[in-house]
Amino acid sequence: MTPEPAAPADELFSEERSAEVVAESFAGTPDPRLRQVMTSLVRHLHDFVKDVELTEAEWEAAVDFLTRTGQTCTPTRQEFILLSDVLGVSMLVETINHRTGGTATESTVLGPFHMVASPARHLGDDIALDGKGTPCLVSGRVAGPDGEPLAGATVDVWQTNEDGFYDVQQPGIQPEGNLRGIFTTDEDGRFWFRSVVPRFYPIPDDGPVGRLLAATGRHPNRPAHLHFIAEAAGHRSVTTHVFVADSPYLDSDAVFGVKDSLVRETPEVDDPARAAELGLPNPFRTLTFDLSLLPSASDR
Amino acid sequence: MTPEPAAPADELFSEERSAEVVAESFAGTPDPRLRQVMTSLVRHLHDFVKDVELTEAEWEAAVDFLTRTGQTCTPTRQEFILLSDVLGVSMLVETINHRTGGTATESTVLGPFHMVASPARHLGDDIALDGKGTPCLVSGRVAGPDGEPLAGATVDVWQTNEDGFYDVQQPGIQPEGNLRGIFTTDEDGRFWFRSVVPRFYPIPDDGPVGRLLAATGRHPNRPAHLHFIAEAAGHRSVTTHVFVADSPYLDSDAVFGVKDSLVRETPEVDDPARAAELGLPNPFRTLTFDLSLLPSASDR
Ligand SMILES: [Fe+2]
Ligand SMILES: [Fe+2]
Repeated sequence: MTPEPAAPADELFSEERSAEVVAESFAGTPDPRLRQVMTSLVRHLHDFVKDVELTEAEWEAAVDFLTRTGQTCTPTRQEFILLSDVLGVSMLVETINHRTGGTATESTVLGPFHMVASPARHLGDDIALDGKGTPCLVSGRVAGPDGEPLAGATVDVWQTNEDGFYDVQQPGIQPEGNLRGIFTTDEDGRFWFRSVVPRFYPIPDDGPVGRLLAATGRHPNRPAHLHFIAEAAGHRSVTTHVFVADSPYLDSDAVFGVKDSLVRETPEVDDPARAAELGLPNPFRTLTFDLSLLPSASDR
Repeated sequence: MTPEPAAPADELFSEERSAEVVAESFAGTPDPRLRQVMTSLVRHLHDFVKDVELTEAEWEAAVDFLTRTGQTCTPTRQEFILLSDVLGVSMLVETINHRTGGTATESTVLGPFHMVASPARHLGDDIALDGKGTPCLVSGRVAGPDGEPLAGATVDVWQTNEDGFYDVQQPGIQPEGNLRGIFTTDEDGRFWFRSVVPRFYPIPDDGPVGRLLAATGRHPNRPAHLHFIAEAAGHRSVTTHVFVADSPYLDSDAVFGVKDSLVRETPEVDDPARAAELGLPNPFRTLTFDLSLLPSASDR
Protein backbone atom coordinates (compact mmCIF):
# COMPACT_ATOMS: atom_id res chain seq x y z
CA MET A 1 0.00 0.00 0.00
CA THR A 2 1.28 3.41 -0.92
CA PRO A 3 0.44 6.16 1.53
CA GLU A 4 -2.48 8.35 0.54
CA PRO A 5 -1.34 11.68 -0.87
CA ALA A 6 -2.33 14.61 1.30
CA ALA A 7 -5.64 16.02 0.15
CA PRO A 8 -5.33 19.33 -1.66
CA ALA A 9 -6.22 22.27 0.54
CA ASP A 10 -9.50 22.87 -1.25
CA GLU A 11 -10.88 19.61 0.16
CA LEU A 12 -11.04 21.07 3.64
CA PHE A 13 -14.38 22.15 5.04
CA SER A 14 -16.19 25.22 3.76
CA GLU A 15 -19.83 26.23 3.80
CA GLU A 16 -20.06 25.88 0.04
CA ARG A 17 -18.45 22.44 -0.18
CA SER A 18 -19.67 20.97 3.10
CA ALA A 19 -21.83 18.20 1.63
CA GLU A 20 -19.15 17.22 -0.88
CA VAL A 21 -16.40 17.09 1.73
CA VAL A 22 -18.46 15.01 4.15
CA ALA A 23 -19.86 12.71 1.45
CA GLU A 24 -16.29 12.12 0.29
CA SER A 25 -15.40 10.88 3.79
CA PHE A 26 -17.76 7.96 3.19
CA ALA A 27 -16.12 7.06 -0.12
CA GLY A 28 -14.21 4.19 1.48
CA THR A 29 -17.30 2.47 2.93
CA PRO A 30 -16.81 -1.21 2.10
CA ASP A 31 -20.51 -1.96 1.58
CA PRO A 32 -21.66 -0.15 -1.57
CA ARG A 33 -25.26 0.15 -0.40
CA LEU A 34 -24.22 1.71 2.94
CA ARG A 35 -21.98 4.09 1.00
CA GLN A 36 -24.90 5.08 -1.22
CA VAL A 37 -27.24 5.61 1.75
CA MET A 38 -24.74 7.68 3.78
CA THR A 39 -23.76 9.80 0.79
CA SER A 40 -27.37 10.61 0.00
CA LEU A 41 -28.18 11.24 3.67
CA VAL A 42 -25.31 13.72 3.99
CA ARG A 43 -26.35 15.62 0.87
CA HIS A 44 -29.99 15.92 1.89
CA LEU A 45 -29.14 16.75 5.52
CA HIS A 46 -26.72 19.53 4.52
CA ASP A 47 -29.26 20.84 1.99
CA PHE A 48 -31.80 21.07 4.80
CA VAL A 49 -29.43 22.92 7.17
CA LYS A 50 -28.49 25.38 4.43
CA ASP A 51 -32.05 25.79 3.22
CA VAL A 52 -33.28 26.98 6.63
CA GLU A 53 -29.92 28.37 7.85
CA LEU A 54 -30.38 26.47 11.08
CA THR A 55 -29.38 28.57 14.10
CA GLU A 56 -27.20 27.27 16.91
CA ALA A 57 -30.14 27.42 19.32
CA GLU A 58 -32.25 25.37 16.90
CA TRP A 59 -29.43 22.85 16.48
CA GLU A 60 -29.23 22.53 20.28
CA ALA A 61 -33.01 22.07 20.46
CA ALA A 62 -32.78 19.37 17.79
CA VAL A 63 -30.02 17.53 19.68
CA ASP A 64 -32.07 17.75 22.85
CA PHE A 65 -35.23 16.56 21.07
CA LEU A 66 -33.49 13.54 19.52
CA THR A 67 -31.87 12.67 22.86
CA ARG A 68 -35.19 12.78 24.70
CA THR A 69 -36.79 10.76 21.90
CA GLY A 70 -34.18 8.03 22.33
CA GLN A 71 -34.49 8.10 26.09
CA THR A 72 -38.29 7.78 25.92
CA CYS A 73 -37.91 4.39 24.21
CA THR A 74 -38.52 1.33 26.37
CA PRO A 75 -39.06 -2.35 25.52
CA THR A 76 -42.76 -1.49 24.99
CA ARG A 77 -42.53 2.02 23.52
CA GLN A 78 -40.70 3.10 20.38
CA GLU A 79 -40.68 6.89 20.23
CA PHE A 80 -38.44 7.00 17.12
CA ILE A 81 -40.97 4.90 15.19
CA LEU A 82 -43.60 7.36 16.37
CA LEU A 83 -41.42 10.22 15.08
CA SER A 84 -41.00 8.41 11.77
CA ASP A 85 -44.79 7.92 11.70
CA VAL A 86 -45.74 11.57 12.26
CA LEU A 87 -43.19 12.70 9.66
CA GLY A 88 -44.77 10.34 7.11
CA VAL A 89 -41.51 8.40 6.77
CA SER A 90 -43.00 5.10 7.94
CA MET A 91 -45.76 5.33 5.35
CA LEU A 92 -43.33 6.34 2.63
CA VAL A 93 -41.02 3.38 3.36
CA GLU A 94 -44.01 1.02 3.54
CA THR A 95 -45.38 2.32 0.24
CA ILE A 96 -42.05 2.26 -1.61
CA ASN A 97 -41.45 -1.32 -0.53
CA HIS A 98 -44.94 -2.58 -1.36
CA ARG A 99 -45.80 -1.01 -4.66
CA THR A 100 -48.79 -2.74 -6.20
CA GLY A 101 -49.14 -0.81 -9.40
CA GLY A 102 -52.82 -0.49 -8.50
CA THR A 103 -53.36 -4.21 -9.13
CA ALA A 104 -53.69 -5.41 -5.54
CA THR A 105 -54.77 -4.27 -2.08
CA GLU A 106 -52.59 -1.38 -0.95
CA SER A 107 -50.55 -1.64 2.23
CA THR A 108 -50.33 0.69 5.16
CA VAL A 109 -48.29 0.77 8.36
CA LEU A 110 -48.24 -2.18 10.77
CA GLY A 111 -48.43 0.02 13.87
CA PRO A 112 -47.27 -0.91 17.35
CA PHE A 113 -50.23 -2.98 18.56
CA HIS A 114 -49.58 -6.26 16.75
CA MET A 115 -47.41 -7.28 19.67
CA VAL A 116 -49.14 -10.53 20.62
CA ALA A 117 -50.21 -13.47 18.47
CA SER A 118 -53.89 -13.19 17.65
CA PRO A 119 -55.97 -16.25 18.67
CA ALA A 120 -57.30 -18.50 15.91
CA ARG A 121 -61.06 -18.01 15.45
CA HIS A 122 -63.84 -19.67 13.49
CA LEU A 123 -65.66 -17.88 10.70
CA GLY A 124 -68.60 -16.03 12.22
CA ASP A 125 -67.07 -15.75 15.71
CA ASP A 126 -67.63 -12.61 17.72
CA ILE A 127 -64.30 -10.94 18.57
CA ALA A 128 -65.89 -8.20 20.71
CA LEU A 129 -65.37 -10.09 23.94
CA ASP A 130 -66.09 -7.05 26.10
CA GLY A 131 -69.66 -6.76 24.86
CA LYS A 132 -69.36 -3.02 24.27
CA GLY A 133 -69.88 -0.97 21.13
CA THR A 134 -71.91 -0.83 17.93
CA PRO A 135 -72.25 -4.36 16.49
CA CYS A 136 -70.76 -4.78 13.05
CA LEU A 137 -70.48 -7.69 10.65
CA VAL A 138 -67.07 -7.60 8.97
CA SER A 139 -66.74 -9.70 5.84
CA GLY A 140 -64.82 -9.97 2.62
CA ARG A 141 -63.07 -12.18 0.18
CA VAL A 142 -59.40 -12.85 -0.42
CA ALA A 143 -58.56 -13.28 -4.09
CA GLY A 144 -55.59 -13.57 -6.40
CA PRO A 145 -54.74 -11.08 -9.14
CA ASP A 146 -57.31 -12.47 -11.57
CA GLY A 147 -60.03 -12.55 -8.94
CA GLU A 148 -59.64 -16.26 -8.26
CA PRO A 149 -60.72 -17.05 -4.67
CA LEU A 150 -57.92 -17.96 -2.27
CA ALA A 151 -59.26 -20.70 -0.03
CA GLY A 152 -57.33 -21.34 3.20
CA ALA A 153 -55.87 -17.82 3.26
CA THR A 154 -55.43 -16.37 6.74
CA VAL A 155 -56.73 -12.98 7.76
CA ASP A 156 -55.24 -11.61 10.97
CA VAL A 157 -57.31 -8.71 12.31
CA TRP A 158 -57.03 -6.38 15.30
CA GLN A 159 -58.84 -3.19 16.23
CA THR A 160 -59.70 -0.92 19.14
CA ASN A 161 -62.78 -1.31 21.26
CA GLU A 162 -65.40 1.39 21.51
CA ASP A 163 -63.20 3.37 23.89
CA GLY A 164 -60.34 3.56 21.38
CA PHE A 165 -57.99 1.09 23.08
CA TYR A 166 -56.41 -2.15 21.87
CA ASP A 167 -56.53 -5.13 24.22
CA VAL A 168 -52.76 -4.94 24.79
CA GLN A 169 -53.15 -1.37 26.07
CA GLN A 170 -55.62 -2.43 28.77
CA PRO A 171 -54.47 -5.76 30.22
CA GLY A 172 -56.79 -6.70 33.08
CA ILE A 173 -59.46 -4.31 31.78
CA GLN A 174 -60.18 -5.84 28.38
CA PRO A 175 -60.49 -9.64 28.07
CA GLU A 176 -57.36 -11.21 26.61
CA GLY A 177 -57.57 -11.35 22.82
CA ASN A 178 -60.43 -8.85 22.73
CA LEU A 179 -61.07 -7.57 19.20
CA ARG A 180 -58.29 -9.66 17.72
CA GLY A 181 -58.30 -12.93 15.78
CA ILE A 182 -56.98 -15.01 12.90
CA PHE A 183 -59.56 -16.33 10.44
CA THR A 184 -59.12 -18.81 7.62
CA THR A 185 -61.04 -18.24 4.40
CA ASP A 186 -63.56 -20.82 3.15
CA GLU A 187 -63.52 -22.51 -0.26
CA ASP A 188 -64.73 -19.29 -1.88
CA GLY A 189 -61.97 -17.23 -0.26
CA ARG A 190 -64.52 -15.65 2.07
CA PHE A 191 -64.16 -14.58 5.68
CA TRP A 192 -66.68 -13.05 8.06
CA PHE A 193 -66.82 -12.32 11.76
CA ARG A 194 -68.76 -10.30 14.29
CA SER A 195 -67.18 -7.25 15.86
CA VAL A 196 -67.96 -3.65 16.74
CA VAL A 197 -67.24 -0.44 14.87
CA PRO A 198 -63.72 0.62 15.93
CA ARG A 199 -63.04 4.09 17.25
CA PHE A 200 -60.44 6.71 16.38
CA TYR A 201 -57.64 6.95 18.94
CA PRO A 202 -54.59 9.07 19.72
CA ILE A 203 -51.06 7.81 19.29
CA PRO A 204 -49.06 8.09 22.55
CA ASP A 205 -48.70 11.84 22.95
CA ASP A 206 -47.11 12.22 26.38
CA GLY A 207 -43.52 12.17 25.04
CA PRO A 208 -41.32 14.33 22.80
CA VAL A 209 -43.29 13.41 19.65
CA GLY A 210 -46.57 14.42 21.30
CA ARG A 211 -45.00 17.74 22.28
CA LEU A 212 -43.85 18.23 18.69
CA LEU A 213 -47.40 17.66 17.47
CA ALA A 214 -48.74 20.13 20.05
CA ALA A 215 -46.14 22.75 19.11
CA THR A 216 -47.05 22.43 15.45
CA GLY A 217 -50.81 22.57 15.95
CA ARG A 218 -51.35 18.93 14.96
CA HIS A 219 -53.68 16.52 16.75
CA PRO A 220 -52.41 13.02 17.63
CA ASN A 221 -55.42 11.03 16.37
CA ARG A 222 -55.79 8.21 13.92
CA PRO A 223 -59.15 7.70 12.22
CA ALA A 224 -61.07 4.51 13.09
CA HIS A 225 -59.68 1.41 11.36
CA LEU A 226 -59.32 -2.35 11.48
CA HIS A 227 -55.85 -3.78 10.93
CA PHE A 228 -55.47 -6.65 8.49
CA ILE A 229 -52.63 -8.97 7.57
CA ALA A 230 -53.73 -11.30 4.77
CA GLU A 231 -51.55 -14.24 3.81
CA ALA A 232 -52.04 -17.00 1.26
CA ALA A 233 -49.68 -19.68 -0.02
CA GLY A 234 -47.91 -18.60 -3.19
CA HIS A 235 -48.90 -14.96 -2.72
CA ARG A 236 -47.42 -11.77 -1.31
CA SER A 237 -48.83 -10.99 2.13
CA VAL A 238 -50.39 -7.60 2.63
CA THR A 239 -50.31 -5.56 5.87
CA THR A 240 -53.00 -2.95 5.74
CA HIS A 241 -56.01 -1.29 7.42
CA VAL A 242 -59.57 -0.69 6.39
CA PHE A 243 -60.77 2.75 7.48
CA VAL A 244 -64.28 3.66 8.58
CA ALA A 245 -65.56 6.23 6.07
CA ASP A 246 -67.39 8.47 8.54
CA SER A 247 -64.66 8.50 11.22
CA PRO A 248 -63.32 11.78 12.56
CA TYR A 249 -59.76 12.50 11.41
CA LEU A 250 -60.12 10.49 8.18
CA ASP A 251 -58.49 13.38 6.32
CA SER A 252 -55.83 14.11 8.93
CA ASP A 253 -54.48 10.77 10.19
CA ALA A 254 -51.55 11.65 12.49
CA VAL A 255 -49.44 8.96 10.77
CA PHE A 256 -50.73 9.45 7.17
CA GLY A 257 -51.93 5.85 6.91
CA VAL A 258 -55.12 6.54 4.93
CA LYS A 259 -55.22 5.70 1.25
CA ASP A 260 -58.33 6.22 -0.86
CA SER A 261 -58.58 2.55 -1.73
CA LEU A 262 -58.75 1.54 1.95
CA VAL A 263 -61.81 3.53 3.06
CA ARG A 264 -65.17 1.76 3.44
CA GLU A 265 -68.67 2.80 4.46
CA THR A 266 -70.30 0.83 7.28
CA PRO A 267 -73.96 0.82 6.26
CA GLU A 268 -76.59 -0.24 8.77
CA VAL A 269 -78.64 -3.38 8.06
CA ASP A 270 -82.11 -3.67 9.58
CA ASP A 271 -83.01 -7.36 9.06
CA PRO A 272 -84.09 -9.24 12.18
CA ALA A 273 -83.92 -12.66 10.48
CA ARG A 274 -80.39 -12.09 9.17
CA ALA A 275 -79.33 -10.65 12.55
CA ALA A 276 -80.67 -13.70 14.36
CA GLU A 277 -78.91 -16.00 11.90
CA LEU A 278 -75.59 -14.25 12.50
CA GLY A 279 -76.09 -13.91 16.26
CA LEU A 280 -76.11 -10.10 16.10
CA PRO A 281 -78.60 -7.66 17.61
CA ASN A 282 -80.80 -5.91 15.04
CA PRO A 283 -80.03 -3.46 13.46
CA PHE A 284 -76.29 -3.91 12.89
CA ARG A 285 -73.60 -2.27 10.80
CA THR A 286 -71.68 -4.01 8.02
CA LEU A 287 -68.21 -3.50 6.69
CA THR A 288 -67.07 -5.26 3.53
CA PHE A 289 -63.38 -5.43 2.65
CA ASP A 290 -62.21 -7.58 -0.25
CA LEU A 291 -58.50 -8.19 -0.53
CA SER A 292 -56.49 -8.91 -3.64
CA LEU A 293 -53.01 -10.45 -3.35
CA LEU A 294 -50.20 -10.53 -5.89
CA PRO A 295 -48.40 -13.80 -6.60
CA SER A 296 -45.12 -14.29 -4.72
CA ALA A 297 -43.21 -14.28 -7.98
CA SER A 298 -43.59 -10.51 -8.21
CA ASP A 299 -42.12 -10.07 -4.71
CA ARG A 300 -39.35 -7.51 -4.70
CA MET B 1 -65.53 28.67 13.79
CA THR B 2 -66.89 26.85 10.78
CA PRO B 3 -65.87 23.21 10.53
CA GLU B 4 -63.02 22.50 8.13
CA PRO B 5 -64.27 21.10 4.84
CA ALA B 6 -63.18 17.52 4.24
CA ALA B 7 -59.94 17.46 2.30
CA PRO B 8 -60.36 16.35 -1.29
CA ALA B 9 -59.38 12.75 -1.85
CA ASP B 10 -56.17 13.68 -3.66
CA GLU B 11 -54.74 15.05 -0.41
CA LEU B 12 -54.46 11.56 1.05
CA PHE B 13 -51.06 9.89 1.16
CA SER B 14 -49.38 8.58 -1.96
CA GLU B 15 -45.77 7.89 -2.84
CA GLU B 16 -45.73 10.76 -5.32
CA ARG B 17 -47.27 13.35 -3.00
CA SER B 18 -45.85 12.17 0.32
CA ALA B 19 -43.73 15.24 1.08
CA GLU B 20 -46.50 17.63 0.06
CA VAL B 21 -49.11 15.86 2.17
CA VAL B 22 -46.89 15.72 5.26
CA ALA B 23 -45.59 19.28 4.83
CA GLU B 24 -49.21 20.44 4.58
CA SER B 25 -49.89 18.88 8.00
CA PHE B 26 -47.51 21.46 9.47
CA ALA B 27 -49.29 24.38 7.79
CA GLY B 28 -51.07 25.30 11.03
CA THR B 29 -47.88 25.60 13.10
CA PRO B 30 -48.34 28.82 15.08
CA ASP B 31 -44.65 29.80 15.03
CA PRO B 32 -43.70 30.68 11.44
CA ARG B 33 -40.06 29.71 11.90
CA LEU B 34 -40.95 26.27 13.29
CA ARG B 35 -43.33 25.85 10.36
CA GLN B 36 -40.54 26.71 7.94
CA VAL B 37 -38.06 24.34 9.58
CA MET B 38 -40.49 21.41 9.75
CA THR B 39 -41.68 21.91 6.18
CA SER B 40 -38.11 21.96 4.88
CA LEU B 41 -37.14 18.98 7.04
CA VAL B 42 -40.03 16.90 5.70
CA ARG B 43 -39.20 17.71 2.08
CA HIS B 44 -35.51 16.86 2.43
CA LEU B 45 -36.20 13.73 4.51
CA HIS B 46 -38.71 12.37 1.99
CA ASP B 47 -36.34 13.22 -0.87
CA PHE B 48 -33.66 11.16 0.88
CA VAL B 49 -35.95 8.15 1.43
CA LYS B 50 -37.08 8.25 -2.20
CA ASP B 51 -33.59 8.85 -3.53
CA VAL B 52 -32.20 5.66 -1.96
CA GLU B 53 -35.53 3.76 -1.89
CA LEU B 54 -34.88 2.89 1.73
CA THR B 55 -35.78 -0.73 2.50
CA GLU B 56 -37.79 -1.77 5.52
CA ALA B 57 -34.73 -3.50 7.02
CA GLU B 58 -32.70 -0.29 6.58
CA TRP B 59 -35.49 1.75 8.17
CA GLU B 60 -35.50 -0.65 11.13
CA ALA B 61 -31.70 -0.36 11.39
CA ALA B 62 -32.00 3.44 11.36
CA VAL B 63 -34.62 3.41 14.12
CA ASP B 64 -32.44 1.10 16.15
CA PHE B 65 -29.34 3.25 15.54
CA LEU B 66 -31.09 6.46 16.60
CA THR B 67 -32.54 4.75 19.68
CA ARG B 68 -29.13 3.46 20.76
CA THR B 69 -27.62 6.89 20.08
CA GLY B 70 -30.15 8.51 22.41
CA GLN B 71 -29.65 5.87 25.04
CA THR B 72 -25.87 6.29 24.96
CA CYS B 73 -26.24 9.91 26.11
CA THR B 74 -25.47 10.64 29.74
CA PRO B 75 -24.88 13.87 31.65
CA THR B 76 -21.23 13.70 30.47
CA ARG B 77 -21.63 12.19 27.00
CA GLN B 78 -23.64 13.54 24.10
CA GLU B 79 -23.75 10.91 21.36
CA PHE B 80 -26.14 12.93 19.15
CA ILE B 81 -23.67 15.83 19.09
CA LEU B 82 -21.05 13.28 18.11
CA LEU B 83 -23.32 12.08 15.32
CA SER B 84 -23.87 15.67 14.21
CA ASP B 85 -20.10 16.13 14.31
CA VAL B 86 -19.19 13.13 12.13
CA LEU B 87 -21.88 14.07 9.59
CA GLY B 88 -20.37 17.56 9.31
CA VAL B 89 -23.61 19.13 10.57
CA SER B 90 -22.02 20.75 13.63
CA MET B 91 -19.37 22.44 11.47
CA LEU B 92 -21.96 23.54 8.93
CA VAL B 93 -24.18 25.11 11.61
CA GLU B 94 -21.14 26.75 13.23
CA THR B 95 -19.97 28.13 9.90
CA ILE B 96 -23.38 29.39 8.76
CA ASN B 97 -23.86 31.21 12.06
CA HIS B 98 -20.39 32.77 12.15
CA ARG B 99 -19.72 33.92 8.63
CA THR B 100 -16.77 36.29 8.58
CA GLY B 101 -16.61 37.12 4.90
CA GLY B 102 -12.90 36.34 5.15
CA THR B 103 -12.31 39.45 7.26
CA ALA B 104 -11.79 37.83 10.65
CA THR B 105 -10.56 34.66 12.30
CA GLU B 106 -12.75 31.75 11.23
CA SER B 107 -14.62 29.70 13.79
CA THR B 108 -14.75 25.98 14.30
CA VAL B 109 -16.63 23.67 16.64
CA LEU B 110 -16.53 24.10 20.41
CA GLY B 111 -16.24 20.39 21.11
CA PRO B 112 -17.21 18.61 24.32
CA PHE B 113 -14.16 19.33 26.47
CA HIS B 114 -14.84 22.93 27.49
CA MET B 115 -16.86 21.60 30.39
CA VAL B 116 -15.03 23.33 33.24
CA ALA B 117 -14.01 26.95 33.68
CA SER B 118 -10.38 27.40 32.75
CA PRO B 119 -8.20 28.93 35.49
CA ALA B 120 -6.97 32.50 35.02
CA ARG B 121 -3.24 32.52 34.16
CA HIS B 122 -0.51 35.12 33.78
CA LEU B 123 1.17 35.80 30.47
CA GLY B 124 4.14 33.49 30.15
CA ASP B 125 2.74 30.84 32.51
CA ASP B 126 3.33 27.18 31.76
CA ILE B 127 0.03 25.33 31.36
CA ALA B 128 1.68 21.92 30.92
CA LEU B 129 1.34 21.01 34.58
CA ASP B 130 2.09 17.34 34.02
CA GLY B 131 5.60 18.07 32.75
CA LYS B 132 5.19 15.78 29.74
CA GLY B 133 5.52 16.46 26.03
CA THR B 134 7.40 18.61 23.55
CA PRO B 135 7.73 22.16 24.95
CA CYS B 136 6.10 24.83 22.83
CA LEU B 137 5.76 28.59 23.13
CA VAL B 138 2.28 29.63 22.02
CA SER B 139 1.85 33.29 21.24
CA GLY B 140 -0.19 35.70 19.20
CA ARG B 141 -2.04 38.94 19.03
CA VAL B 142 -5.72 39.78 19.25
CA ALA B 143 -6.71 42.61 16.94
CA GLY B 144 -9.79 44.37 15.62
CA PRO B 145 -10.81 44.45 11.95
CA ASP B 146 -8.32 47.18 11.04
CA GLY B 147 -5.46 45.49 12.87
CA GLU B 148 -5.80 47.66 15.97
CA PRO B 149 -4.53 45.76 19.04
CA LEU B 150 -7.19 44.71 21.52
CA ALA B 151 -5.69 45.16 24.98
CA GLY B 152 -7.45 43.33 27.82
CA ALA B 153 -8.98 40.74 25.50
CA THR B 154 -9.29 37.25 27.02
CA VAL B 155 -8.00 34.13 25.34
CA ASP B 156 -9.38 30.89 26.77
CA VAL B 157 -7.29 27.91 25.63
CA TRP B 158 -7.48 24.16 26.18
CA GLN B 159 -5.68 21.27 24.55
CA THR B 160 -4.72 17.62 25.03
CA ASN B 161 -1.56 16.49 26.68
CA GLU B 162 1.02 14.43 24.87
CA ASP B 163 -1.09 11.31 25.32
CA GLY B 164 -4.05 12.87 23.51
CA PHE B 165 -6.27 13.43 26.57
CA TYR B 166 -7.85 16.56 28.02
CA ASP B 167 -7.57 17.08 31.77
CA VAL B 168 -11.31 16.47 32.21
CA GLN B 169 -10.92 13.03 30.65
CA GLN B 170 -8.31 12.00 33.18
CA PRO B 171 -9.31 13.34 36.60
CA GLY B 172 -6.86 12.09 39.20
CA ILE B 173 -4.29 11.29 36.51
CA GLN B 174 -3.71 14.78 35.08
CA PRO B 175 -3.35 17.73 37.48
CA GLU B 176 -6.53 19.82 37.67
CA GLY B 177 -6.49 22.57 35.03
CA ASN B 178 -3.69 20.87 33.10
CA LEU B 179 -3.23 22.40 29.63
CA ARG B 180 -6.04 24.88 30.14
CA GLY B 181 -6.08 28.57 31.01
CA ILE B 182 -7.49 32.04 30.44
CA PHE B 183 -4.98 34.74 29.45
CA THR B 184 -5.53 38.48 29.18
CA THR B 185 -3.77 40.34 26.37
CA ASP B 186 -1.26 43.12 27.16
CA GLU B 187 -1.42 46.70 25.87
CA ASP B 188 -0.33 45.53 22.41
CA GLY B 189 -3.05 42.86 22.28
CA ARG B 190 -0.42 40.18 22.76
CA PHE B 191 -0.62 36.89 24.63
CA TRP B 192 1.96 34.16 25.18
CA PHE B 193 2.26 31.08 27.31
CA ARG B 194 4.27 27.92 27.64
CA SER B 195 2.71 24.59 26.74
CA VAL B 196 3.47 21.40 24.83
CA VAL B 197 2.60 20.38 21.30
CA PRO B 198 -0.89 18.81 21.49
CA ARG B 199 -1.54 15.39 20.06
CA PHE B 200 -4.25 14.07 17.75
CA TYR B 201 -6.91 12.05 19.55
CA PRO B 202 -9.95 9.93 18.79
CA ILE B 203 -13.46 11.08 19.53
CA PRO B 204 -15.29 8.59 21.78
CA ASP B 205 -15.73 5.59 19.49
CA ASP B 206 -17.14 2.92 21.78
CA GLY B 207 -20.78 3.84 21.02
CA PRO B 208 -23.14 3.78 18.04
CA VAL B 209 -21.30 6.65 16.30
CA GLY B 210 -17.98 4.84 16.62
CA ARG B 211 -19.56 1.74 15.12
CA LEU B 212 -20.90 3.84 12.24
CA LEU B 213 -17.38 5.17 11.59
CA ALA B 214 -15.98 1.63 11.67
CA ALA B 215 -18.67 0.33 9.32
CA THR B 216 -17.93 3.12 6.84
CA GLY B 217 -14.15 2.74 6.92
CA ARG B 218 -13.60 6.05 8.69
CA HIS B 219 -11.15 6.61 11.53
CA PRO B 220 -12.31 8.49 14.66
CA ASN B 221 -9.34 10.85 14.96
CA ARG B 222 -9.03 14.59 15.14
CA PRO B 223 -5.74 16.22 14.11
CA ALA B 224 -3.74 17.94 16.88
CA HIS B 225 -5.15 21.34 17.84
CA LEU B 226 -5.45 23.96 20.54
CA HIS B 227 -8.92 25.30 21.29
CA PHE B 228 -9.35 29.06 21.53
CA ILE B 229 -12.19 31.31 22.62
CA ALA B 230 -11.16 34.95 22.16
CA GLU B 231 -13.34 37.69 23.63
CA ALA B 232 -12.91 41.48 23.68
CA ALA B 233 -15.27 44.23 24.71
CA GLY B 234 -17.20 45.62 21.74
CA HIS B 235 -16.26 42.69 19.52
CA ARG B 236 -17.74 39.38 18.42
CA SER B 237 -16.19 36.47 20.27
CA VAL B 238 -14.66 33.70 18.22
CA THR B 239 -14.63 30.00 19.14
CA THR B 240 -12.01 28.24 17.11
CA HIS B 241 -8.96 25.93 17.03
CA VAL B 242 -5.47 26.30 15.72
CA PHE B 243 -4.29 23.08 14.06
CA VAL B 244 -0.73 21.74 14.05
CA ALA B 245 0.38 21.63 10.42
CA ASP B 246 2.27 18.35 10.55
CA SER B 247 -0.30 16.43 12.58
CA PRO B 248 -1.65 13.12 11.33
CA TYR B 249 -5.27 13.32 10.17
CA LEU B 250 -5.04 17.00 9.23
CA ASP B 251 -6.81 16.18 5.97
CA SER B 252 -9.35 13.80 7.47
CA ASP B 253 -10.57 15.31 10.75
CA ALA B 254 -13.39 13.03 11.94
CA VAL B 255 -15.52 16.12 12.68
CA PHE B 256 -14.43 18.27 9.67
CA GLY B 257 -13.17 21.08 11.93
CA VAL B 258 -10.10 22.01 9.87
CA LYS B 259 -10.17 25.16 7.79
CA ASP B 260 -7.16 26.31 5.77
CA SER B 261 -6.89 29.55 7.68
CA LEU B 262 -6.53 27.75 11.01
CA VAL B 263 -3.47 25.60 10.29
CA ARG B 264 -0.05 26.67 11.64
CA GLU B 265 3.48 25.30 11.48
CA THR B 266 5.27 24.77 14.80
CA PRO B 267 8.89 25.55 13.90
CA GLU B 268 11.66 24.61 16.34
CA VAL B 269 13.72 27.40 17.89
CA ASP B 270 17.25 26.63 19.03
CA ASP B 271 18.20 29.64 21.17
CA PRO B 272 19.48 28.86 24.69
CA ALA B 273 19.27 32.51 25.84
CA ARG B 274 15.68 32.93 24.65
CA ALA B 275 14.77 29.54 26.14
CA ALA B 276 16.24 30.52 29.49
CA GLU B 277 14.42 33.84 29.43
CA LEU B 278 11.09 32.09 28.79
CA GLY B 279 11.74 29.26 31.21
CA LEU B 280 11.70 26.64 28.47
CA PRO B 281 14.21 23.88 27.73
CA ASN B 282 16.25 24.43 24.59
CA PRO B 283 15.36 23.75 21.79
CA PHE B 284 11.59 24.39 21.85
CA ARG B 285 8.79 24.62 19.34
CA THR B 286 6.78 27.76 18.63
CA LEU B 287 3.21 28.26 17.48
CA THR B 288 1.98 31.70 16.49
CA PHE B 289 -1.73 32.38 16.13
CA ASP B 290 -2.99 35.90 15.59
CA LEU B 291 -6.72 36.47 15.97
CA SER B 292 -8.84 39.12 14.33
CA LEU B 293 -12.27 39.95 15.76
CA LEU B 294 -15.20 41.70 14.11
CA PRO B 295 -16.96 44.52 15.95
CA SER B 296 -20.14 43.52 17.79
CA ALA B 297 -22.22 45.75 15.53
CA SER B 298 -21.84 43.25 12.71
CA ASP B 299 -23.15 40.47 14.94
CA ARG B 300 -25.98 38.59 13.30
FE1 LIG C 1 -54.27 0.97 14.82
FE1 LIG D 1 -10.39 19.16 20.87
